[in-house]
Amino acid sequence: MKAVRFSKFGHPLKVVELVEEPDAALESGQVRIEVLATPINPSDVLTLSGQYGSLPKLPAVPGNEGVGRVVEVKDTSAVKVGDLVFLPLGAGTWRTHLVAPAEGLVTVPPGTDLKQASMLFVNPPTADILLREFGALKPGDWVLQNAANSAVGRYLITLAKQAGYKTLNVVRREELAKELTELGADVVLTDTDDLPERVKAATGGAKVRLAIDAVGGDSTRRLGDSLATGGTVVNYGVMSGKGPKLSAAATIFKDITLRGFWLVLWLKRAPREQQQETFGRLAKRVADGTLKTAVEGTFTLDAIQEALARSMEGGRGGKVLLTPNGPV
Amino acid sequence: MKAVRFSKFGHPLKVVELVEEPDAALESGQVRIEVLATPINPSDVLTLSGQYGSLPKLPAVPGNEGVGRVVEVKDTSAVKVGDLVFLPLGAGTWRTHLVAPAEGLVTVPPGTDLKQASMLFVNPPTADILLREFGALKPGDWVLQNAANSAVGRYLITLAKQAGYKTLNVVRREELAKELTELGADVVLTDTDDLPERVKAATGGAKVRLAIDAVGGDSTRRLGDSLATGGTVVNYGVMSGKGPKLSAAATIFKDITLRGFWLVLWLKRAPREQQQETFGRLAKRVADGTLKTAVEGTFTLDAIQEALARSMEGGRGGKVLLTPNGPV
Repeated sequence: MKAVRFSKFGHPLKVVELVEEPDAALESGQVRIEVLATPINPSDVLTLSGQYGSLPKLPAVPGNEGVGRVVEVKDTSAVKVGDLVFLPLGAGTWRTHLVAPAEGLVTVPPGTDLKQASMLFVNPPTADILLREFGALKPGDWVLQNAANSAVGRYLITLAKQAGYKTLNVVRREELAKELTELGADVVLTDTDDLPERVKAATGGAKVRLAIDAVGGDSTRRLGDSLATGGTVVNYGVMSGKGPKLSAAATIFKDITLRGFWLVLWLKRAPREQQQETFGRLAKRVADGTLKTAVEGTFTLDAIQEALARSMEGGRGGKVLLTPNGPV
Repeated sequence: MKAVRFSKFGHPLKVVELVEEPDAALESGQVRIEVLATPINPSDVLTLSGQYGSLPKLPAVPGNEGVGRVVEVKDTSAVKVGDLVFLPLGAGTWRTHLVAPAEGLVTVPPGTDLKQASMLFVNPPTADILLREFGALKPGDWVLQNAANSAVGRYLITLAKQAGYKTLNVVRREELAKELTELGADVVLTDTDDLPERVKAATGGAKVRLAIDAVGGDSTRRLGDSLATGGTVVNYGVMSGKGPKLSAAATIFKDITLRGFWLVLWLKRAPREQQQETFGRLAKRVADGTLKTAVEGTFTLDAIQEALARSMEGGRGGKVLLTPNGPV
């Protein structure tokens, strides 16, 4: 079995190494899973560089989600050899094989695109919860987001469309407008200081009360200045490398609130039933193809540096996936 | 009658002028009030420079609060000549005399220091509401604030002490520690980047969940980084000239919320009973001398430029008051 490992925090490309590990014998109730697809998420990159909110004890194997095939079972009928399953969340998934308890494994619905399924547990629930838990949106309401071309941004466009919300999508590159509009975006805007006026023009002066921010810095401020009195900006990412800020006029005179969202805290706090409902509903939409995001490229583990470099580039066309056992 | 007037927004010292106006005849139910004391608040300075959240139609007379003596009444027994009354909120109070409806005037409790009474309606309720409506504080809980030497900051120290909360007070000048400690401050700290560590040391690691911010910029960020997971920073002022910001680590990983407070919005939204309860309770404390703030100096209207300049200086020892009819 091969695995990506890191023994110190630092520049992601420099701290990862590919190591060979002996296949551990299964204990009763365990299964061995061949990892088929596992994404590189921004949280993985931040973990490698030591900047994430929760960091593993080192050495560790990165990777938090993915899909695989059961190749060996011991004393269990919960799953059988050949079953396609979601990898346990946070298992250290950047490896060729994974040992896990059979209990609790969830099988991938038949017919699901495996690449899309490998990205189910982090970005789709982030987009879903951002839309559902911060704004009390009703059909016809507007929601404003930056980083609209990110995986979460694209999921959010689709989920908002399905719920009947209208989206204002802020991007850095104007040429993304066509693609996002085809995905269901109502309005696409570039991120400049006249954003509040352009939001007003695009919505006909409708009150926009929820903004979703993955950029930070002045981009957060522009979102805040575009909201109606009493609105909320939710920050979940830091693509600019800067913390979120608001104008004093927005905070004080317009009662704009800045909140944060981190899926890890949500998983700690949300009742199990709510989590199951959320993942179940999103899994169905991934299975029927109505919820998907673009894939930039797939890489085997021996190309981990190249894969990481690609995942950290701007101007990508989608998510970077690892396929440790070859094409899926 | 003389009044301070401004006909355009700009540098406060340059836009104000002292004008002579004819004494209007009273209508039935009106009274004439001789203005005794009226403060220069930060909101007045921001109004003159055109940066406040609500701006008057020009020309206008600045000033929002104060106390005066009834000198003439017409067809009313609601108040009588000689009564000391609070000026109606937002009446344009920087003048020698004011005409107002007798109904709704509130008399100043006997024995109250008139300078202190003139500052009742803006800063004490700001401090009170910041403590009561954002944090669900219980006796023994900590609250963190910057600009601790401001009028609101000093009121907050007193009100927190009376409620049994402990205060962490951030100031720019270390030499203020003794004075604020005598006022009731539990801890006084200077505003440097190791604030989170010094807060932790000062509280023995207690969870601090509420921070009050009148500075903005990096000072807000330091407050946010000093709070426990789930805490709230409330921004009500912009002394640095910069909007409030948080670190991404605070927003995302520690679920810190940034909110704003503006008394004007509170006055629009809070039920009348709650407003009466608030002002009544604070008026009692000003009357019995347990709630007070320092006065830097008093000025007549013909020294308005000097008064404004003083009110805009750093390192002041207290509030600047206008006494349009001479010493009170």
